[in-house]
Order: sequence, then structure tokens, then C-alpha cells
Amino acid sequence: MGRESNRVAVALDAMGGDAAPLEPVRGALLASGPELSVLLVGDAAQIEAEVVRQAGSVPASIEIVPAAERIASEEEGARAVRAKPDSSVALACRLVGEGRAQAAVSAGHTGAMLAAATLYMRRVPGVIRPAIAVVIPSVRGQVVLLDAGASAEARPEHYPQYAMMGRLFAQDVLGIPEPRVGLLSIGEEEGRGNETVQAAYALLRDTPGFVGNVEGRDINRGLSDVVVTDGFTGNVVLKALEGAAWYLMTEMRSAVTRTLPGRVGALLVRPSLRRMRQHVDPENYGGAYLLGVRGLAVIGHGNSSGEGIANAVRLAAQGARGDLVTHFAAALGAERAPSA
Amino acid sequence: MGRESNRVAVALDAMGGDAAPLEPVRGALLASGPELSVLLVGDAAQIEAEVVRQAGSVPASIEIVPAAERIASEEEGARAVRAKPDSSVALACRLVGEGRAQAAVSAGHTGAMLAAATLYMRRVPGVIRPAIAVVIPSVRGQVVLLDAGASAEARPEHYPQYAMMGRLFAQDVLGIPEPRVGLLSIGEEEGRGNETVQAAYALLRDTPGFVGNVEGRDINRGLSDVVVTDGFTGNVVLKALEGAAWYLMTEMRSAVTRTLPGRVGALLVRPSLRRMRQHVDPENYGGAYLLGVRGLAVIGHGNSSGEGIANAVRLAAQGARGDLVTHFAAALGAERAPSA
Repeated sequence: MGRESNRVAVALDAMGGDAAPLEPVRGALLASGPELSVLLVGDAAQIEAEVVRQAGSVPASIEIVPAAERIASEEEGARAVRAKPDSSVALACRLVGEGRAQAAVSAGHTGAMLAAATLYMRRVPGVIRPAIAVVIPSVRGQVVLLDAGASAEARPEHYPQYAMMGRLFAQDVLGIPEPRVGLLSIGEEEGRGNETVQAAYALLRDTPGFVGNVEGRDINRGLSDVVVTDGFTGNVVLKALEGAAWYLMTEMRSAVTRTLPGRVGALLVRPSLRRMRQHVDPENYGGAYLLGVRGLAVIGHGNSSGEGIANAVRLAAQGARGDLVTHFAAALGAERAPSA
Repeated sequence: MGRESNRVAVALDAMGGDAAPLEPVRGALLASGPELSVLLVGDAAQIEAEVVRQAGSVPASIEIVPAAERIASEEEGARAVRAKPDSSVALACRLVGEGRAQAAVSAGHTGAMLAAATLYMRRVPGVIRPAIAVVIPSVRGQVVLLDAGASAEARPEHYPQYAMMGRLFAQDVLGIPEPRVGLLSIGEEEGRGNETVQAAYALLRDTPGFVGNVEGRDINRGLSDVVVTDGFTGNVVLKALEGAAWYLMTEMRSAVTRTLPGRVGALLVRPSLRRMRQHVDPENYGGAYLLGVRGLAVIGHGNSSGEGIANAVRLAAQGARGDLVTHFAAALGAERAPSA
């Protein structure tokens, strides 16, 4: 698989997310095709009924893999995965570990997906610590931010690995030929930031594409294609950006609909704004990627629509086709990871 | 001053900011009045000419205090303040230290203002470490975020002081009677976050109004009135929020003006959106407050307009009238700071 053929299989947790299995099934039907098969993992009877309801029959590009259990949103992720090895999210990751799929996608429990991927996919040789990468829109195109929360702390030596994984992700998945890498800090000059960030700067100096520090406001400005940071800061910033988008849209709607000319104007600008939301809404970026494990693990938003899940599946397939995992291992100078 | 009288004097660095002294003079003329006098600090001849040009003569509520030097934006803040004790920003802070003004405002060099305030205003007895507070809009009203960058690291014992200062600021300056305090983290439950944040949680448990962890997206949701965090995370988040507002406005404008109905609609919604920007634009919140020094130090945006500077001056005066400094000292159980 991977480099020999363009055909890719993605395991999708059909029981993950607020509207499962309805939206995961929609996503699978939208994304699957001759070159991309989707393994729908979960309650087989329920999934099959939903596929038939939506599509009339089960297409050749979709396979249903029965999983006896599911993990609820209130369970503690790591514990639940150990207690339920036959849950849909655990099985989706095991299918990747066993080589039956090249990537796993879940719009369910983030902590469970992280734990299952770490447990069943194993790390790429040489990777000290996997990281969550997210794609953020900017005026200059897409920006990869990592770590967005796989670990709550980072030591300086983790940053060069984050930079390398982010750079290869930007190349293989986003198609950016020479990604520029920035270190998230609180001032442009070297020497700004906390002690960890200052030490990380020194280690990043020789990283290909390193452009120095970037600040919070530079993310949406696209001053670099990759932004590296610790998982605490990355997660807080990612959620702050989501909150800001939601807040501005909410305020705008209520400001505009307060007057009659505003309401008329709102009708006229609506189609343009709807197109714009395709660019600025995080859901259209297909979620978060756990990088550094053998195979790609993609975590969608819990409230993902079928379209959002389809995007996550497509991007996961793109990463698998680009052979990201093999590139990570090669960049680390370690033995090549088996490509399936 | 302070509690005995409502009259307050604010020292304003007339040479700070991209359009100085024009915009600082505009701000001073807008904000000053019978109960608020402004001391304009800087090149006396230049300031007087600008005041006369704008207002015809120098009003009784404005005093011009000559300062021989100014600090340029490219200078290193702390070093420049030590080298230029007669610079406009240093003198503005010294006027507070000497009791001639109750608060100092500069829209110039953040690092210089921080250094000058720390050097000339001295800490409130009992305060381990001053913090920068910023006011962020939310759907439920204004939110105080601190530390927004006074220090690059925080130890757990700093958080209860940040919480106390943020709470008193929300009461005295923003008029929120019982402010709720949240700890910025990467999950709602206790035990989430990095080691420092976990230890801070334990110390914050007995803080009045403590509501537990809040996440990045909860800032604009107004889940708490005060958000405490370390200066690295706070600064990155503040700038990310500014960047997101700028990005969404930019994308919206270009999306809407691409079609004819969009352009017509944009004309109709413009007045509503302009009013909305009053709420969402950081400039209207008067900048950043250095809390924990004797007297208030307010740092405006470098590109502040006269209105932005006037708001900063008014809020600084409100803090001085509310006797924030005395409240800090009382809350710390230390001797009461002299109120003028």
C-alpha cells in the first residue's frame, strides 16, 4: 500500500460524535470511491441500516467492521480504551496497527482516540513524543499548528521534532513545497519567551525553513506555514481562535439584524459570507492529526457534520498516500517504518 | 486625593505612539474636564503648539510637563529607561511615584512603560509580582485576562495574587460586583493542564469567586469575569485574539466586495458593523494595565487614536478613584498603601 498503489483504506469510528452513526455514515458515503475505501467501525446492524437508508445499498467502497462496544463522552479516555479493547474507536486504531487500514478517523472522544492511537498504532521509530497538528486558516493560506494538546508540557528537545513533523505534514498533506517554521513566542527577537522557548530557539536554529519567533497575531497572518509550541499553549490558542470566530459571528449577526437596512444588507451579503465560512470555519479543515504514530490518526470535532467528517477522511487518505509516516522515519534517520 | 476627592490627575506620555503628540493631545482634550486633569509629558513647545492648534488655547484641565528626552520604539525598554530618566515615559511614571498624578498612561513602548512603572512607582506592599491585565469583550460583558505578559513565567503561588488583583480590578474599574475567577487550562476538570496550572488550581480553591478551569474558547463566552494565566500564555492568547479579529474582518470585507449584491449589502450593514466594532475592537478597551504597583500604569496600543487614548485615560482615572491600590494592599493583609 502507500507508495505502491494509490488505493487507501481509512477506518472510521462510526459511533463517534454527537450525531453518530448518521453523520459518520454521511461522511463515509461522501468521501469513499474507487481510490478510497472506508471501513465503518461500530454497531454493524445500526450502521448497515443507516447506509441503506442514505444510499439504498452498501457501496463496494464501504466495508462494515463490527465493534461490540462504544466509549461515551463522559468516560476518561485512556482508562476507557484499556477497559474496552473492542470499542469502535479502539478497533479503528487496531485496524491501522494490523495494516488493514492506513489511517483512522474519529469525531468522538479526543482523549480516547489519542489513547487508542498511542496504544495500537505505536510510535514511528525515533519519535520521542507524538503531537497533535491542526490546520488553521490564514490570509496567506493554511497554517499547521502543533502541538495542539497531545502533551501538557514540552521540553526544548521536543520542538525540533515538532518542527520536522509539521514541515513534512505541510509538504505531504497541504502541498506546501518549502514550509517556513516559526516558534510561537511573545516577541520577535531571539531571547524572548519563557525559558523553555528560549532553549528551543537555540535547538531550532538549524531546522530547515526556520524563520525565528512568531507571535499570537502572526498565526492568522500566515507569517510561517508551521507554528511550533507546547501542547498547553497550542491547545489554549486553538480554542481561543475558535471562540473568537464564534464570538465575532454572533456579535455580527445580532448587530446587523437590529436595524431594517441591516437585515436587508444581511440577506445580500449572506452568500458571500457562507463561502467565506468555508475558509474560516475550523470544521472544514478536518480536525486534528496525531503525528508520530505509525499511520495517521485524525480526530474530528465532536459536532462534525457529514461534510466535516468527509474532509477528515480525505485528508487522512492524502497523508497516507503521501507516505507521511515513512518520511517521518527517514527524517529521523531511523530505520524506515514499514509502509503498511 | 483618591478617596477624599473625586478629582484625579493622570500623567500622559505625549511622545508615545505612532502619531505623537497629535493623538495623545487629542486624547487629553477628549478625556480631561473638571474632575480629571491630564498632565501632558514631553516636548513642551511641540505639545503646546499642538494643543493650541486643536483647542485654540490650553484648557485649565491640562498641564504641560516638560521632558527632555523620548524613547524610540526600537530601543530596548529597560535599558532605555535607565539611560533616559528624563524621557517622557519615565517622567510620567515618576509623577505618579511623587504623588503629582494617580495614574500614568502611554501608547508608546510597552517594555519601556513596564520598566518605568516598576522602577518609579514601586510595588504595592505584599505584591510578589505585578501583572498586566487586559480587558477582552465577551457575549456576557467584559472579561479581565491577566497576566498578559509582565513576566514570561509564573509559579503556582503567583496565581492567587493574579486572581485577587483581577477580581479587584473587575470590581473597581469595570463595576462587576462579584467577579467569577477562572484558571486558563486545557480541560474543564481539576487535574487538567500542565504541572504549574495543576498546582495553581489547588492554591486557587479558596479564592473568592473561583469557578475552576476555563478553556481558550470560554474567554469570549464570558464563562468567568477574570481569567488568570501565566504571562507567556496570556500574551500569546491576547495577540491571537487580536489576530483573529483582524483576520475575520479582512476576509469578510474581501468576500463581500467580490459581488455586486455583496457590495450593496455591505453598504447597508456598515453602520451596524461600525457600532459592533466599538464592542469587539481591543482599542476601545483602553489598553493594558500594570497592576500591583502604587498607582495605575496603563499601556495603550502604539497605533491608538485620540479616542483610544481618551478611553485609556478615563479608565485609569476610574481605577484611581476606586482606590484600587489601597484595595490591593488591604486584600494582601499588608499595611495600607498611602492613597496619594
